[in-house]
Amino acid sequence: MPPSHIKTREQLDPIFNPTSVAVVGATSTAGTVPYDIFANLMRDKFQGMIFPVSPGNRSIDGVKTYKYVKDIEDPVDLAILVFPNTVCSRALEQCGQKGIKGAIVISAGFKETGPEGIEREKQLKAIADQYGISFIGPNCLGVINTDPSVRLDASFARAMPDEGPIGFLSQSGALCTAVLDYARSKHIGFSKFVSFGNKADISEIDLLYYLKDDPKTQVILIYLEEISDGKALMQAARDIISETGKPILALKSGRTSQGAAAAASHTGSLAGSDNVCDAALKQAGIIRCKTIDEMFHIAMAMAYQPLPRGNRVAIVTNAGGPGVLTTDAAIEEGLELANFSEETTEKFKRALPKTANIHNPVDVIGDARADRYNAAVTAVLADDNVDGALVILTPQSMTDIEQIADEISALGHQSDKPVYASFMGEADVASGIDILLRRHIPHYTVPEAMCRSFARALKFRQECESPATPAAPYTDFSHAKAQAALGQASGDGRNLLRPEEISAVLTAYGLPLVRDRVAASADEAAKWASELGFPVVMKVMSDQITHKVDVGGVVLNIESAGEARSAYDRIMANAAKNCPNATVRGVLVQRMMKGGEEVILGIKRDPSFGAVVMFGLGGTFVEIFKDVSFRVAPIDPAEVHKMIRQIRAYPILNGARGRVCRDLAAVEDCIQRLTCLALDCPEIKELDLNPLFVFEEGKGCYVGDARIMI
Amino acid sequence: MPPSHIKTREQLDPIFNPTSVAVVGATSTAGTVPYDIFANLMRDKFQGMIFPVSPGNRSIDGVKTYKYVKDIEDPVDLAILVFPNTVCSRALEQCGQKGIKGAIVISAGFKETGPEGIEREKQLKAIADQYGISFIGPNCLGVINTDPSVRLDASFARAMPDEGPIGFLSQSGALCTAVLDYARSKHIGFSKFVSFGNKADISEIDLLYYLKDDPKTQVILIYLEEISDGKALMQAARDIISETGKPILALKSGRTSQGAAAAASHTGSLAGSDNVCDAALKQAGIIRCKTIDEMFHIAMAMAYQPLPRGNRVAIVTNAGGPGVLTTDAAIEEGLELANFSEETTEKFKRALPKTANIHNPVDVIGDARADRYNAAVTAVLADDNVDGALVILTPQSMTDIEQIADEISALGHQSDKPVYASFMGEADVASGIDILLRRHIPHYTVPEAMCRSFARALKFRQECESPATPAAPYTDFSHAKAQAALGQASGDGRNLLRPEEISAVLTAYGLPLVRDRVAASADEAAKWASELGFPVVMKVMSDQITHKVDVGGVVLNIESAGEARSAYDRIMANAAKNCPNATVRGVLVQRMMKGGEEVILGIKRDPSFGAVVMFGLGGTFVEIFKDVSFRVAPIDPAEVHKMIRQIRAYPILNGARGRVCRDLAAVEDCIQRLTCLALDCPEIKELDLNPLFVFEEGKGCYVGDARIMI
Repeated sequence: MPPSHIKTREQLDPIFNPTSVAVVGATSTAGTVPYDIFANLMRDKFQGMIFPVSPGNRSIDGVKTYKYVKDIEDPVDLAILVFPNTVCSRALEQCGQKGIKGAIVISAGFKETGPEGIEREKQLKAIADQYGISFIGPNCLGVINTDPSVRLDASFARAMPDEGPIGFLSQSGALCTAVLDYARSKHIGFSKFVSFGNKADISEIDLLYYLKDDPKTQVILIYLEEISDGKALMQAARDIISETGKPILALKSGRTSQGAAAAASHTGSLAGSDNVCDAALKQAGIIRCKTIDEMFHIAMAMAYQPLPRGNRVAIVTNAGGPGVLTTDAAIEEGLELANFSEETTEKFKRALPKTANIHNPVDVIGDARADRYNAAVTAVLADDNVDGALVILTPQSMTDIEQIADEISALGHQSDKPVYASFMGEADVASGIDILLRRHIPHYTVPEAMCRSFARALKFRQECESPATPAAPYTDFSHAKAQAALGQASGDGRNLLRPEEISAVLTAYGLPLVRDRVAASADEAAKWASELGFPVVMKVMSDQITHKVDVGGVVLNIESAGEARSAYDRIMANAAKNCPNATVRGVLVQRMMKGGEEVILGIKRDPSFGAVVMFGLGGTFVEIFKDVSFRVAPIDPAEVHKMIRQIRAYPILNGARGRVCRDLAAVEDCIQRLTCLALDCPEIKELDLNPLFVFEEGKGCYVGDARIMI
Repeated sequence: MPPSHIKTREQLDPIFNPTSVAVVGATSTAGTVPYDIFANLMRDKFQGMIFPVSPGNRSIDGVKTYKYVKDIEDPVDLAILVFPNTVCSRALEQCGQKGIKGAIVISAGFKETGPEGIEREKQLKAIADQYGISFIGPNCLGVINTDPSVRLDASFARAMPDEGPIGFLSQSGALCTAVLDYARSKHIGFSKFVSFGNKADISEIDLLYYLKDDPKTQVILIYLEEISDGKALMQAARDIISETGKPILALKSGRTSQGAAAAASHTGSLAGSDNVCDAALKQAGIIRCKTIDEMFHIAMAMAYQPLPRGNRVAIVTNAGGPGVLTTDAAIEEGLELANFSEETTEKFKRALPKTANIHNPVDVIGDARADRYNAAVTAVLADDNVDGALVILTPQSMTDIEQIADEISALGHQSDKPVYASFMGEADVASGIDILLRRHIPHYTVPEAMCRSFARALKFRQECESPATPAAPYTDFSHAKAQAALGQASGDGRNLLRPEEISAVLTAYGLPLVRDRVAASADEAAKWASELGFPVVMKVMSDQITHKVDVGGVVLNIESAGEARSAYDRIMANAAKNCPNATVRGVLVQRMMKGGEEVILGIKRDPSFGAVVMFGLGGTFVEIFKDVSFRVAPIDPAEVHKMIRQIRAYPILNGARGRVCRDLAAVEDCIQRLTCLALDCPEIKELDLNPLFVFEEGKGCYVGDARIMI
């Protein structure tokens, strides 16, 4: 179920499936946007009625124009606004008065241009709300619906794309023109194509839910420059994938801080951390791509061929060198070369010349013609040990390229296993590639892209098929106790919690604390130390002393009651000497944990995604290598499992090279508890458990030190 | 100077610049290799005489044939053998008798097919040597020389490439056909194009030296499936780069072990470690590429545009989104966005509309035509803060794509700074791209490839310009002493050296050892320990005990003479109990080093590259992360410097986060000494210094433990 504030199908249908369209602000001057929009609607054979509204023309290209929207006799579903930005609001108001419920505001000069534009955009939105209009834009290229019963090209693109299973959403209008051009020559078809611009009213989230229920859309592509509501995006992705199995591919620019700055000056939005964004998209099942090329490479594979069921590929080639390059690429993408069955090997022996290499990669030899390719590809597709075929061709003088393309295309559509191809070269192989693409066999110029696409498609299938693992609900939390401790600090106007408050909060959520007591005298210190068991560590307690070690406020490795007594005195003396103005509230005596591996857990708040949990191995690994993993709360248990195993230093926790296997189940439990705490107490801005000592399997983990900021 | 065994210019000229060519084994059957070779020579207008030798035809395509080579009346420079492999030797013999000095053996069925083929190939080589013939092949596509005064297309490629500055060498014939096709449509021209096949006589090393002195060749590309003589390859690369400044780009397949296995089954050669290969190629200044695409992307930039002088790029775009994507890509490749001078900013203000973004990336806005692009690109190229221009274009409805391509091409050739372009899309921008490529402006479909090419070209220039740092010669080595210790072990038939032998070898090369003595009694142990200074560590000495710790043969942290005495007794007792059959030669008493960071240095022998030095941070980093760097001996001091700084864990040695800066100069000295040892004593198969303790700057480093295998 989409969230309640999401635009309904009824609200968006006037935009995507109108029976009548008004082009408000049309002109007859070719080469201008107001003309191109009108001309595109006409050229691409919109199946409804088109009404140009133009104060200055009586007709455009033979079609009667109207001075005002209200002059149109028929009801109008969709208004496309191409007026200068200064008069858009008034025009939209007239659309409202006419009863039009959908609009596309093409005009630029709004939020993206500064304070004046922001004001104009607010006005536009207010009028839309007043009249119950839903609109796309402003500052966009427009909307295309290729459905033959609609054929709406409400854009100033150069040409309408083919019909196809891909829904495309873009925050950048200019990028759309490049994408349409690229896709057309690759015979990649679209269901809906939307440039959503400043999204003053209809957002990418609304559009995602619309595509979710659009039967013509099988794969969703989205280009984003900023993510304004990360949580909603994640929810939409999860709803789409779990309910419909449609994959979502995202290209998010602004990966680097400079890129983000360029995006900000371009879209006027602030960027969050790209690490968090990356983790969040993956967590929601979105396939993040680094380039437009990569996005379409993967989209082609997912839209037009079955998803692979496993990673065992068969490579069929007419050239050894490219076979080797493809093998390298496959292995680097985590694929395996299939071991052929005896039956397949026998088939090869019958069909291929003696000099052919009948092991994987199968080399059908440079003089191979279509019959040999056909025999080899047929054989590998029939082999139970093979999950997909990667067909390589180099243009030798006797290669019948088009015939081979034709037969491979046929085989690709007869089989329930994916077939991808790479015809290497350019002009000589162009006609062959065109045949493959027209017949929807994914084609790649280089084997690396082919293998990556296979691997991504496989991963998506595996993720879809892995059973959901709902978190077991915790029943031992005491929100009230945590709230009390947090309230105490905020009541005092402190933004850092005291040790006893931290203990209260963590204990309320069942996080494993090292046992401790507060001592007010040397004798008490000795008593508590003996009670807790040696060795202990002792730390000064004072709101004013933040760097305890630096002022001699911490003593480690205390092994006896006598040592505890003298440690107390030393700590108090150091505090008095080094921090004469600090109020010391006693000395914390804590059981000292030995032999645990130190990990770090943290919570921070991302402006777009909300509560984010961080995990890493302590010390060098976090400090120097930034070897940490992120997840956005709430976290599925399977994701908690993954986030621990995703850091590079994971083998250290997992018994590598004679090490002890650590109690990772206990760490997973801590992450779950911490996540609940973060969600229940939004006043916590930051929280670190550093270190969390992790003991060997079955022996748990303990919070060594913690910091909570509100 | 090339090594003495390298083929001379005189030996190779008959192949590349012949005045007369015999096609030995030509036939008149179109669509066969023996015909295609002859037909290609004719079609591509060879500037000398062509003599088909064909036992079965009187003429081919109107040209008179000869039954035997000896029947040709004129002298012949080059023979191209296209006979079946079984008769090639006899044909080559006849060529020798005729006095022909150059040959290309196209025919396959030699080394690559097994024992029989290996024998045939040996025979071929023997005959060539007997008659002083130099030949390329067998099992190759042939040779092309585009020089207008020669125009030799001695290949069965589909078409002759354009003339141009790129020399291309390939171990795979089939890959050549794809490369030629690819290059043709991108207007990439070649000087020489060689498929060298099994290299029974002329090797890639010979060819590299030939291209070094070829005035038509400015950039060298090589595709390799195995590297048979890594040292020679490195030497050739160094000679080429230092003497001529020609860049060398290499594509080496078999990166993964499965890829290497596929290559082996295809070329019949064994693969070394790809890590070593990768390090070696870089060390020699070779630019290693991962894909054919990448190789040509970089080659285009280096062949046709000036090398960048710095990393400050200006991005000029007509679309915000692609500008952001390009910014991301530039930053990720280590480039910077140039800060424009005030003058440039003023120029922008005059030439661009108000809505344009005049900061980098410069957005000339979607409706920009050629005049605006021209103004922006001219301005950035004139700015001293800019090292190169990256021009992005998306096809908007008013974009005059061809005009823009034309003007950018002109600007690119007027400036001494590089100009690269990315016209995004496909069909709409195709004619513009074609103009760019014809006029040799490097064009990239995606900004990532553009930025990577810029970065690689820059790095090459920087490496060429960085002054050579010859190693200061060491004078304190005693090769004789090392030899004596090694001789002792080999005399005893041991392949592992004893501690005292290891000490002798390392001391002979000035490697810093921790002070130690051998104790034969508990009293002696106490005496040596007191003399060395506490703490000490004691270790059992026995050829039979390899895992000393496991049998209780090591005691650490000995702080007094008494402790030393009892440690001696304990070690001897443990040895007697746990290894009753071992001969114990005493107990080693060693000063125990504290507070050093542990690193590892090692030597191993690569079958192709020879002595390889390895460096890494000790413990987890080497064991789990394989975080090590390699260099092939001898190593330039600048490379020693780099290899330490290249490991991921380098910040740990360099004072990151409050750590101590370690004495890396001392480590560099150790690496140099170890390298000399490896080169002087080839009998050392493996050597590890593990750990080498590195103290803070100026305080040196000490070998904690070492292992030498002969």
